[in-house]
Amino acid sequence: MANSSSGDSVTDRLVRVLETFTPTRTAQTAAEIGRRAGLPSSSAHRIVGELVDSGLLERDDDRRVRIGMRLWELATRSSQALRLRQSAMPAMERVQARIREHTQLAILEQDEALFLERLSGPASGSNVTRVAGRLPLHASSSGLVLLAFGDHDLQERILSSPLPPLTRETITDPVALRRKLAEVRSLGHAVARGFIEAVSTGVAVPVRDETGQVVAALSVVLRRDAPVEPALVELHAGKREIERALGFRG
Amino acid sequence: MANSSSGDSVTDRLVRVLETFTPTRTAQTAAEIGRRAGLPSSSAHRIVGELVDSGLLERDDDRRVRIGMRLWELATRSSQALRLRQSAMPAMERVQARIREHTQLAILEQDEALFLERLSGPASGSNVTRVAGRLPLHASSSGLVLLAFGDHDLQERILSSPLPPLTRETITDPVALRRKLAEVRSLGHAVARGFIEAVSTGVAVPVRDETGQVVAALSVVLRRDAPVEPALVELHAGKREIERALGFRG
Repeated sequence: MANSSSGDSVTDRLVRVLETFTPTRTAQTAAEIGRRAGLPSSSAHRIVGELVDSGLLERDDDRRVRIGMRLWELATRSSQALRLRQSAMPAMERVQARIREHTQLAILEQDEALFLERLSGPASGSNVTRVAGRLPLHASSSGLVLLAFGDHDLQERILSSPLPPLTRETITDPVALRRKLAEVRSLGHAVARGFIEAVSTGVAVPVRDETGQVVAALSVVLRRDAPVEPALVELHAGKREIERALGFRG
Repeated sequence: MANSSSGDSVTDRLVRVLETFTPTRTAQTAAEIGRRAGLPSSSAHRIVGELVDSGLLERDDDRRVRIGMRLWELATRSSQALRLRQSAMPAMERVQARIREHTQLAILEQDEALFLERLSGPASGSNVTRVAGRLPLHASSSGLVLLAFGDHDLQERILSSPLPPLTRETITDPVALRRKLAEVRSLGHAVARGFIEAVSTGVAVPVRDETGQVVAALSVVLRRDAPVEPALVELHAGKREIERALGFRG
């Protein structure tokens, strides 16, 4: 697409506009979008106007805009996210019904765990995960699984990057993280007690597709001191069910 | 954004590219996208290349591309679709667990019913609905609810348009449709027996947001001759639960 005078493509600008919308910032004015995306005010107004005309953004009142239903529809209807999620849903519902805590499906995206789905019951405990939200690989149980079964380059990249603590228990030492990843591979699951929130324990297992590659992590978030074993039994049953749906003959 | 020589904006071209991906066409070459979007081959290759660079599309192998996880994430994480869907999920899971048939949530989008969610069990019957898929307003039970409680202009627009049959039982006569809409308003629910598929019956109820406006339809798809009353009881309980979550004090 045509390049602007500053040299970035129009697609880059579009991405920068979309990135200004977050789970907690769902409506903004064109001026706010321009400021947050680093775009001149006139460009921001023009781009927002075009995105509203095409239905990708929707006008809230006469000043603020939101992500449009049309954009969600186009981004979802043929997506791999939807395919994976639909393959996983029956198993996730069963795990959630039995464990009665948050049940989640995550994939690797740009060196983070991206959550495709989260099912919660009225009695589920604390949980920071959101659908289409992310968590760091070194801290979340899903991330540890995706990292442990990820490729060598990914592991070295994460191990040589800063490992910021989310709680006092998050693993921040690369040597300890390398040991944890080996443990995850050997056990076939990850337990992250207090790594994300002191009050909860994440438990995750890998999910393989028809090629045998780990494409997702299935996880539950338990209360910190809840027993892990019943969750592991359900997660392993659920993971096998999803793998069968994905065509894995392991 | 900059206009191309043909006068359409880059945003229009982007939408045309995204529109070529459908639930049954999830991977395409740049050449196929160009042909389906009506773009010159050179433009199609350039746009696809940029969208891949930004992560909005992902390369499948060296020739085909898919909708990227990044696009799904950006389109979902702050969307109204996600908010509505999350508010509805606990109620939908309860309805699905009790009726054990497809349970769905739809909104009005561009004069059609757009489905935000569909929960199904292993024993659920036939159903053509997909997440992020659409059905015509005059034929689906969800559509009839959204139309019956929609504004006057929408109703007149649909009533004066062709009403194509999906089965021999779909209402195709505007006079009969007007009567059906009055019935839906008076009963507070829609029953569509055989309108979409001869083998099934859709049952839908309206869902109101905090302003009292109908923003969605909650529905189940039953086997054609299954009794409607148990589903209606669950749908009404579910709808009230969603309305409370949305802040409606009806």
